Amino acid sequence: MRTPNPPPRDPRRRPHAGARDARPATQARPPREPADNWLYGRHAVAAALANPERRWRRLAILSGHEAEAQALLAAARAQRRGPRVDRRVEITGAAVEVLDRAAFNLLLPEGAVHQGWALAVEPLDPPDLDDVLRAADVAPGSSGGRQVIVVLDQVTDPHNVGAVLRSAAAFGAAAVIIAGHGAPPVGGALAKAASGALDCVPLVRVVNLARALLRLKEAGYWCCGLDEGAPAPLAALDLGARVVLVLGSEGGGLRRLLRESCDYLARLPTRPELPSLNVSNAAAIALYELVRAEPAG
Amino acid sequence: MRTPNPPPRDPRRRPHAGARDARPATQARPPREPADNWLYGRHAVAAALANPERRWRRLAILSGHEAEAQALLAAARAQRRGPRVDRRVEITGAAVEVLDRAAFNLLLPEGAVHQGWALAVEPLDPPDLDDVLRAADVAPGSSGGRQVIVVLDQVTDPHNVGAVLRSAAAFGAAAVIIAGHGAPPVGGALAKAASGALDCVPLVRVVNLARALLRLKEAGYWCCGLDEGAPAPLAALDLGARVVLVLGSEGGGLRRLLRESCDYLARLPTRPELPSLNVSNAAAIALYELVRAEPAG
Repeated sequence: MRTPNPPPRDPRRRPHAGARDARPATQARPPREPADNWLYGRHAVAAALANPERRWRRLAILSGHEAEAQALLAAARAQRRGPRVDRRVEITGAAVEVLDRAAFNLLLPEGAVHQGWALAVEPLDPPDLDDVLRAADVAPGSSGGRQVIVVLDQVTDPHNVGAVLRSAAAFGAAAVIIAGHGAPPVGGALAKAASGALDCVPLVRVVNLARALLRLKEAGYWCCGLDEGAPAPLAALDLGARVVLVLGSEGGGLRRLLRESCDYLARLPTRPELPSLNVSNAAAIALYELVRAEPAG
Repeated sequence: MRTPNPPPRDPRRRPHAGARDARPATQARPPREPADNWLYGRHAVAAALANPERRWRRLAILSGHEAEAQALLAAARAQRRGPRVDRRVEITGAAVEVLDRAAFNLLLPEGAVHQGWALAVEPLDPPDLDDVLRAADVAPGSSGGRQVIVVLDQVTDPHNVGAVLRSAAAFGAAAVIIAGHGAPPVGGALAKAASGALDCVPLVRVVNLARALLRLKEAGYWCCGLDEGAPAPLAALDLGARVVLVLGSEGGGLRRLLRESCDYLARLPTRPELPSLNVSNAAAIALYELVRAEPAG
């Protein structure tokens, strides 16, 4: 762990920025997962319909939601005719399927809390770290303040990843980064827990989290790992305008390599006898603290 | 909603305290649920073994955890021989059942993340509001500061109730209160999400939440409801030494009657376009804020 007040890194120092910006338009994205993927729950479905980047195939609702579904579709059509229109995502007079509860339940995994809404979608084009860094250069953080990115290490529960995305959206974080291997699939359970945030906050998969931290540090971010054993409470640190929050799995905490990649380690003020929090709760608190203490100007 | 700075209520005003304290020892508790109930996960099992009030029947582990299981049992036996010993909970030479994975999985619901630990328990004697208020009079809040009680209205997901219990334990809250009807059963899923907190923080079921708020106000607590539409951020309120946090369901928020029963309404500083948080995340943030801003002395 470094000293609590290292000299500020030059945020304008962004090696390889030219190379990243010059990525040819024809460069292949990672291949998309095949087949339909049902999103469910009102917020998740509404956010997917409102997202011009989201391609979908079928909208199924329970009786009673017809008017709201038509309104959401009309709003989505209007948005997709706007300047950001993309031929791939045009809605070709899609019909709303009104199903009874038995037919509805057959579409979804057992126990899915769908609230009468389900949308068969294709996965979003996976955003990459370059996309996030470019967007961060254009748009500063929420309310013109701090820019925050969340990195999750070995968090395997889709509900937790979804809940972190939701908190990231609520507190204006720029992205959530997970490892390509070991992280949960982007399915209905994750999207439901994200409550629409999957279509608002980039969920970036990277091959190697330690290398991603290095990239972020080069881009002017300070990396702060949450660790129960850290001496400094998060609220005591002055983390500047660009912050990466790094959270480990519930069982093992941060792995050594990631811990050593952090500029700071910080703890939350939990009681020593029962210090651990659910990872999505720890992330929510840390995001709150960073918004609460945003640097002036 | 009342004005932000009402005159302080006299915390010593506790009507009916004599009557409550005089409850005869023979008064019947509510009947216990029948049958075994499996707790699983290392933290949940360890906390149950360490809790002198917890009665249990079988401890099952996967091979490899024998030494730790024997240590936990020895510690539990030592604790139960202490001054708080209760004949009902004596451990009569209980054996540890070491099972293979197939036999283990048969004990538990499909998909239960057991980490190689399972304990068949009886439900705890359900604590009531009088127990909580009496304990609050004896022991002040964590670190001698603020005393906090969480009230959950219509939160039906056992993972959420469990995660709130866990945060309540981590931030030293005195109890979590839920309605007797509609709240989820106290089963393995809730206990696993609570990660041991079910055996540390009283989970109180009451018949009527609005009446419970009235009782708490009479006992000197200020009741603060979390509401996205409230004008005041939680951090701006001076809530004093005894606080009840009231959180509503994710779908509907606080019901009108409970909202009107609160002394204050407060919001968290989320973005207007995506304001809502998972209820356990909102509770964690609010508990953090109350610990962060504990009144001096």
